[in-house]
Amino acid sequence: MNRGFASDNAATVHPEVLAAIVGANAGHAFGYGHDELTRALEGRFREHFGERARGYPVWGGTAANVLSLRATCRPWEAVICAETAHLYLDECGAPEAIAGVKLLPAATDDGKLTPAAVEARIEHLGDEHSVQPRMVSISQCTELGTVYSAEEVRSVAEIAHASGLLVHMDGARLSNAAAALALELGALTTECGVDVLSFGGTKNGLLGAEAVVFLAPDLGDGFEYLRKQSLQLASKMRFLAAQLGALLTDDLWRRSAAHANAMAALLTQRVGGLAGVTITRPVQANAVFARLPTETVTAALQREYDFYVWDEPANEVRWMCSWDTTEEDVEQFAAAVARAVN
Amino acid sequence: MNRGFASDNAATVHPEVLAAIVGANAGHAFGYGHDELTRALEGRFREHFGERARGYPVWGGTAANVLSLRATCRPWEAVICAETAHLYLDECGAPEAIAGVKLLPAATDDGKLTPAAVEARIEHLGDEHSVQPRMVSISQCTELGTVYSAEEVRSVAEIAHASGLLVHMDGARLSNAAAALALELGALTTECGVDVLSFGGTKNGLLGAEAVVFLAPDLGDGFEYLRKQSLQLASKMRFLAAQLGALLTDDLWRRSAAHANAMAALLTQRVGGLAGVTITRPVQANAVFARLPTETVTAALQREYDFYVWDEPANEVRWMCSWDTTEEDVEQFAAAVARAVN
Amino acid sequence: MNRGFASDNAATVHPEVLAAIVGANAGHAFGYGHDELTRALEGRFREHFGERARGYPVWGGTAANVLSLRATCRPWEAVICAETAHLYLDECGAPEAIAGVKLLPAATDDGKLTPAAVEARIEHLGDEHSVQPRMVSISQCTELGTVYSAEEVRSVAEIAHASGLLVHMDGARLSNAAAALALELGALTTECGVDVLSFGGTKNGLLGAEAVVFLAPDLGDGFEYLRKQSLQLASKMRFLAAQLGALLTDDLWRRSAAHANAMAALLTQRVGGLAGVTITRPVQANAVFARLPTETVTAALQREYDFYVWDEPANEVRWMCSWDTTEEDVEQFAAAVARAVN
Amino acid sequence: MNRGFASDNAATVHPEVLAAIVGANAGHAFGYGHDELTRALEGRFREHFGERARGYPVWGGTAANVLSLRATCRPWEAVICAETAHLYLDECGAPEAIAGVKLLPAATDDGKLTPAAVEARIEHLGDEHSVQPRMVSISQCTELGTVYSAEEVRSVAEIAHASGLLVHMDGARLSNAAAALALELGALTTECGVDVLSFGGTKNGLLGAEAVVFLAPDLGDGFEYLRKQSLQLASKMRFLAAQLGALLTDDLWRRSAAHANAMAALLTQRVGGLAGVTITRPVQANAVFARLPTETVTAALQREYDFYVWDEPANEVRWMCSWDTTEEDVEQFAAAVARAVN
Repeated sequence: MNRGFASDNAATVHPEVLAAIVGANAGHAFGYGHDELTRALEGRFREHFGERARGYPVWGGTAANVLSLRATCRPWEAVICAETAHLYLDECGAPEAIAGVKLLPAATDDGKLTPAAVEARIEHLGDEHSVQPRMVSISQCTELGTVYSAEEVRSVAEIAHASGLLVHMDGARLSNAAAALALELGALTTECGVDVLSFGGTKNGLLGAEAVVFLAPDLGDGFEYLRKQSLQLASKMRFLAAQLGALLTDDLWRRSAAHANAMAALLTQRVGGLAGVTITRPVQANAVFARLPTETVTAALQREYDFYVWDEPANEVRWMCSWDTTEEDVEQFAAAVARAVN
Repeated sequence: MNRGFASDNAATVHPEVLAAIVGANAGHAFGYGHDELTRALEGRFREHFGERARGYPVWGGTAANVLSLRATCRPWEAVICAETAHLYLDECGAPEAIAGVKLLPAATDDGKLTPAAVEARIEHLGDEHSVQPRMVSISQCTELGTVYSAEEVRSVAEIAHASGLLVHMDGARLSNAAAALALELGALTTECGVDVLSFGGTKNGLLGAEAVVFLAPDLGDGFEYLRKQSLQLASKMRFLAAQLGALLTDDLWRRSAAHANAMAALLTQRVGGLAGVTITRPVQANAVFARLPTETVTAALQREYDFYVWDEPANEVRWMCSWDTTEEDVEQFAAAVARAVN
Repeated sequence: MNRGFASDNAATVHPEVLAAIVGANAGHAFGYGHDELTRALEGRFREHFGERARGYPVWGGTAANVLSLRATCRPWEAVICAETAHLYLDECGAPEAIAGVKLLPAATDDGKLTPAAVEARIEHLGDEHSVQPRMVSISQCTELGTVYSAEEVRSVAEIAHASGLLVHMDGARLSNAAAALALELGALTTECGVDVLSFGGTKNGLLGAEAVVFLAPDLGDGFEYLRKQSLQLASKMRFLAAQLGALLTDDLWRRSAAHANAMAALLTQRVGGLAGVTITRPVQANAVFARLPTETVTAALQREYDFYVWDEPANEVRWMCSWDTTEEDVEQFAAAVARAVN
Repeated sequence: MNRGFASDNAATVHPEVLAAIVGANAGHAFGYGHDELTRALEGRFREHFGERARGYPVWGGTAANVLSLRATCRPWEAVICAETAHLYLDECGAPEAIAGVKLLPAATDDGKLTPAAVEARIEHLGDEHSVQPRMVSISQCTELGTVYSAEEVRSVAEIAHASGLLVHMDGARLSNAAAALALELGALTTECGVDVLSFGGTKNGLLGAEAVVFLAPDLGDGFEYLRKQSLQLASKMRFLAAQLGALLTDDLWRRSAAHANAMAALLTQRVGGLAGVTITRPVQANAVFARLPTETVTAALQREYDFYVWDEPANEVRWMCSWDTTEEDVEQFAAAVARAVN
């Protein structure tokens, strides 16, 4: 099987990250985050997200999202999100079951919540029969590969804050978004009014580490307990800290993400003009969505390369590029697509 | 700071494990366990725990325990455990909050549940006002460093099964117990009637991987969903599989655990005879509990070495040995203890 | 304030029900349902819903719904319902928070799920990232005052059962539906393939009693524990049993519901022809939805009579008739509407 | 079967309460507590419990307890209670499952927590692996029929408050305690530092109504939502308000409770001197615990009268007196006991 385009989590661990893990493997260190690498990481989070940022490593992306909600919402409070959000569709009900919140899905054209869509769901306030909106959650990049501009994040945050709601960002691919917009991580989060962030690492070259980062003050009281109780306190924390620390050092986050984005752009360029192939969504980061002419074409390609069918009736597929996707991978795959559609 | 005796999770990752991680880092692999290393690991679990064993990697030990319970107990069912159990004391209420079960603690002399203690808690059957016992959970090794013999496990299982209850083993240190008894892993679990196992790895030289292993048939239906919902489905699963696979290859589990046990025995030998030092619990695996003459002695030692005070009023301390504890570490530490008590 | 049209739960307790309560108030009786009236009620449920029906009184309608779900769905299972369902909109997140299930809302024209709408939501089967549909919940009558015919219930049940899903009916107003269709209670539930029923009483003249009724065999194992744990086990159960028993005696359920329905029909007749008043939904039971010409008209009427504005932008109101609504009430109210719109 | 001594919830509804229910059954009233009787009841709570008291009716006693906890504790917080508490033993795990808190049981001699027992359980503060004590819950009267004096309540509250913990009282039989001590309700709660109260009614002559009463300021924010979500918002609330209102009018609470207490005293007097009968606990309110000479005696008595065996090995039984227990009931029962032991 060739190196595929299934997901950025099918990729390898970046050598700098692996080196950091190996480097961390010296001597004994207190567990549960009471070690020097974790302390150093806390400083990294402040560098990137501002002096008030408090970042807590967790293992997985679903966990980062669910803990962000669990830490901020009371049992009768609800979270507005896009109906395409990972939170809503792809976490097997964890937000409801583990965070204990109801989600209020809003329709979107391109995966991005608009201020109007958010406003429409801030309803039933003060009605004891209804959950009360407490937070807006946006995904950066979205599940459809689109990217919120800083201005768009800010405008959602303004609407949310005006009604007393908080803003959560599912930043599983925040690095790809920031790289695409040539912005710093803080410029697309803290400075836009995001209150809590799920900071993604695994999809950008880590072995397995994410973080919940509280950006607004007065949030996250007692989070240490919540993380432990929610099954996300790593005993050998130093190895999570090493990974996240590497990602936030020497702009590894940007180098890796920018490369993945560039590969998606290259792929788009190579296949976009092929007869029978339609690029179906704006390619703004590392995802390419395309419609193939027939199911037979799709099936033939899948025999050579891993990737997901996104919308079966529409014969729409998704190709994800990773930090380790090479130009050669793209050229070979584009050639395979060309062969398949002919 | 010298290499300490705080916990076996303060230790490093074993080189064979690190090598397995590095080896796994080649090419793309489907996420979420749909990869070859995970499939191979499933075979390893069957080799060690019997043909009907189904093992599911998770990140942490608390998670393995909580998911074991969540997968087997309905909301009104309860779990009998020692009042010293990790489950009861050290998981920040996760069994109750996340697994949704009530724990029924039983007093023990040495951390081990006896058949009589279990039987005494199988009560209020059929009373709708009371939770219904569904499972007995035992820890191997116990929190007090003691080890259940195969016969002891079997006798607890017999009592449990006779009342229709299941048996869970928190095997965070199962390897140390099996090494101490010179038994195979299956001989101390499957063959003794254990139904569900939390198989520990992190405390025995892994970077961070444990597993829920269903040993009895007809258990674990739908566990894939439960693991995802409970925040324990690793996207880059191959790196967890690699670690656990290494542990179950060429008896690494036994070599590492036996060494840790031997270091505890050596430490016991070196300090047991010192005036003012009393070994307070049977040293059966890799934990040494000791009473020091004064708080001043304890504090002085802690300035040189990391370890925990177990029972402050009694001035009892706990020293854990690890796979990477060396004879030299032990000799130097024993010398430090000798200096301190003089 | 005149007797209004706000809700059928704003009505009084029916004299036959009050008489049953008074009659039950003699001598001591074991609590928690271990009394003769509760046993007699169990027989009543079998008479009306078939020999395999097992009915359990609870206090409230939200509780009946939530317990129906909690008793049948595992944590990763989900319930398909209309996006207008009480369950989805009006229970403050209890299905998610207490039953621990995710709801999968489906759009409807008239509050009624169609087989096609159900089928479209039976998706992501076998995908561990997604909750798994387990049940379809329909409301009888719907929140929009419409009534499923027996054939419609049957066709939804067939689609559900064909995919291995169960059918729940939120029968808060089942009596009104059965009365409207001139059917027995069992003919609109058990005989149509409904598996679990929330049987409503409070909106049909009781003081406060509903029931969870399991209609299909093999459901409800352990429900006694679940009811207690979910805060719905009444200690003085005999008074709930007395109420429900009265409702199921001498067709009180039908007499009361048929009267409420007739009053809604009369109201529709009286106001339907008024200039500026539009009846907006089919009047099939005891609810009348109407559009009034202006907000001023609505406000003027609300100064005299209690009722709810249903859709503020559309100036649509809801008028509910009750078992105790009199012809005189309707005539006076219709006259008030006529005055207001002139 | 004669009128028994099984439980005070086996008793009838007091005529004044029934009259209040009948009286409330006039005209329409908005549901869910937006009615005049509920508003009036709020005033009654302030009269009895102080100007800052906010009382919310619920249906059941377990619900009152669980909602008290759910309203005040965060997921990682825990509640210290007697190991004999109703909360711990008799609510089928609802505090854990629905309130989401862990209970920290403390041994007691007589069902009453002492300051020392409370203090011993305020431990592991700041340890992220352990739940954090947030509340102390005491039962008044206790499950063993004993009564905390005002001074005892105050001393527990002082210890709790000194550590930043709140105090909850399970006051299912608060009226019996207050009557026994000849104190006002507020004098035994608000004035002693109780922060949240489960105010009992059903065991003291109501049909079925209890209340959560917040006594300390700054508690209970959002409780309306929590009550609805936790399945305890009565639609026809006026009938709960009528019951509780009656109880708090003209000292009905005290008249009923004092009578029940007096009957227990009379029973004690009549049977305490019988050969073979030992009163095993101090009779301080309406419960009498006694040891009978043989199981045969117990069984013979139970053929004539309902009551519970409390401790089977000890052949200890519990006899509860109610508001409706008559002197004749007691004399006849005492005679039956005398016959049985002879």
